[in-house]
Amino acid sequence: MTIDATALRALTFDVFGTVVDWRGSIARQATLAAAPHGMQIDASAFADQWRAGYRPAMDRVRKGELPWMNIDTLHRRILDEMLPQFGLDALSERERDHLNRAWHRLDPWPDSVAGLTRLKSKFVIATLSNGNVALLTNMAKHAGLPWDCILSAELFHHYKPDPESYLGAAAMLGVKAGETMMVAAHEDDLIAARAAGLRTAFVRRPLEFGARPGYDLPRERGFDYVADDFVDLARQLGV
Amino acid sequence: MTIDATALRALTFDVFGTVVDWRGSIARQATLAAAPHGMQIDASAFADQWRAGYRPAMDRVRKGELPWMNIDTLHRRILDEMLPQFGLDALSERERDHLNRAWHRLDPWPDSVAGLTRLKSKFVIATLSNGNVALLTNMAKHAGLPWDCILSAELFHHYKPDPESYLGAAAMLGVKAGETMMVAAHEDDLIAARAAGLRTAFVRRPLEFGARPGYDLPRERGFDYVADDFVDLARQLGV
Repeated sequence: MTIDATALRALTFDVFGTVVDWRGSIARQATLAAAPHGMQIDASAFADQWRAGYRPAMDRVRKGELPWMNIDTLHRRILDEMLPQFGLDALSERERDHLNRAWHRLDPWPDSVAGLTRLKSKFVIATLSNGNVALLTNMAKHAGLPWDCILSAELFHHYKPDPESYLGAAAMLGVKAGETMMVAAHEDDLIAARAAGLRTAFVRRPLEFGARPGYDLPRERGFDYVADDFVDLARQLGV
Repeated sequence: MTIDATALRALTFDVFGTVVDWRGSIARQATLAAAPHGMQIDASAFADQWRAGYRPAMDRVRKGELPWMNIDTLHRRILDEMLPQFGLDALSERERDHLNRAWHRLDPWPDSVAGLTRLKSKFVIATLSNGNVALLTNMAKHAGLPWDCILSAELFHHYKPDPESYLGAAAMLGVKAGETMMVAAHEDDLIAARAAGLRTAFVRRPLEFGARPGYDLPRERGFDYVADDFVDLARQLGV
């Protein structure tokens, strides 16, 4: 299952769900946003619906039905559509903008900072997220994520799983695709990265979508590593 | 001379000369590269000549005489031209590549890490260099530079002092030009940043070109800050 880790030079990380707990964080911040309006909302459903709008919106950009828009803009379009359904029409522009930036303030999984810090001692560690650079930069500051470099689909104007995003990241880091390993909790991301020539590490995040069975083990075989968390990945990579 | 620092959100830094001592570092590494060939070279002259080739090469790209090339590529073109003049024709491909990557291993000025760490507690701190992303990422790892984000002219395919580089950096960080301050030891960089709407901080680096008088104080008036080093800049910004 494991490859020669000495051939690896850079690790690129999916972020939403892999490094940070978007669902819990968004639910907490949606609750905070609703409170001043005297509203109690199903905050997990709110987080799930917001997230569910993201992939179709990105796919419209990927297919050219929409011009390039970054994730902040896509998140805001989805948010504005959703708010009436949750009785939150009354949110002001300032409140909407603050809530939209909840994605800049996502909290890490408990092992993320410790694991990344270990991995950084041996490899270049970079984000490779569909989140935009500002979002990822602010999130790193908020969560204390010790990235060597912030890379984003925004730099390539190609969202994952387009191959341009994976190949662009390796090129930007000055390494070969085969010297780069994509780390993600999502099989589709890793399958696309592998097709582009990158190495792959699946990290189990069983709580990403709440306590739903079946989301924590890959059905796909043949990823180079399968790890319980980032500390386990560091151990497997001999760091 | 000083502005309202509470309006500032991001600081973008020139790197070569402002954050790191390219001349001393390149001279040391050129000496190391020459030694196995039994050559003693004028290492400071070597560093100066290499650096002197950089601006004209970039300007050819800026004017469209050359297609986009990153700094690693431009450095290598200059290096290959220079080596015979220093009696170093015999360097192998591997040695040339290693020496070319000396720019990835530049050492910081003594105050750089401490000053950046202080500034990072209040502002987003990012590179804004003509160096490519891989170079800046590797340098940060080598030198312990605590950047929040690596930004480079490479991302915009516009070298400084083109306005696209300054405006692109602010946009990428999700802040307004006027909320961004360019920090540099070079007046031309700051004058261009100011023309693009950024705030400006001049940092004195009197030893950048060796002990040459006249290089440490700006002739231009009207930069928002003039600081002796990054720790002094942090103090002036109330960090």
